[in-house]
Amino acid sequence: MYRAVITVTLRPSILDPEGKTVEHSLHQLGYENVRRVRIGKHIELEVDAGTEDKARETVENICSKLLANPVMEDYTFSLAKVEEAAEG
Amino acid sequence: MYRAVITVTLRPSILDPEGKTVEHSLHQLGYENVRRVRIGKHIELEVDAGTEDKARETVENICSKLLANPVMEDYTFSLAKVEEAAEG
Repeated sequence: MYRAVITVTLRPSILDPEGKTVEHSLHQLGYENVRRVRIGKHIELEVDAGTEDKARETVENICSKLLANPVMEDYTFSLAKVEEAAEG
Repeated sequence: MYRAVITVTLRPSILDPEGKTVEHSLHQLGYENVRRVRIGKHIELEVDAGTEDKARETVENICSKLLANPVMEDYTFSLAKVEEAAEG
């Protein structure tokens, strides 16, 4: 079992209206020294795979096929082996 | 100038319908070995502060006041000093 932590971010050339809105709100709250707010997605998941290579291939595929829009977004991820957990 | 990278995640006890939807989609796409999908926010921003302590205090405040819902979410962040950039 491998745990993946994935970060999906908008490419630098793509405008980020959500980030701009947050930046504007922060300025209105008095945090005028904050800028370049960019918002992305943080995704955690577990993959049941026999080897780290297999897990990496699965995560790579699901990032490029489902989690990230390849035209507008970049993604990175890290993988860590975890013990089979009892919960949920 | 400090760059903050913030991760906001739902607390483990809080249901994550967005994560469940992604998990369901992944299963339908044939990735049945993926589970415990949880979705959070990844936020990057820059703070113009004289010292790292000041920057940390600002980021701490904006996380607790605006970026995270303290009832349902946890947040972590890292800070790094960056040179004044020419762009944007």
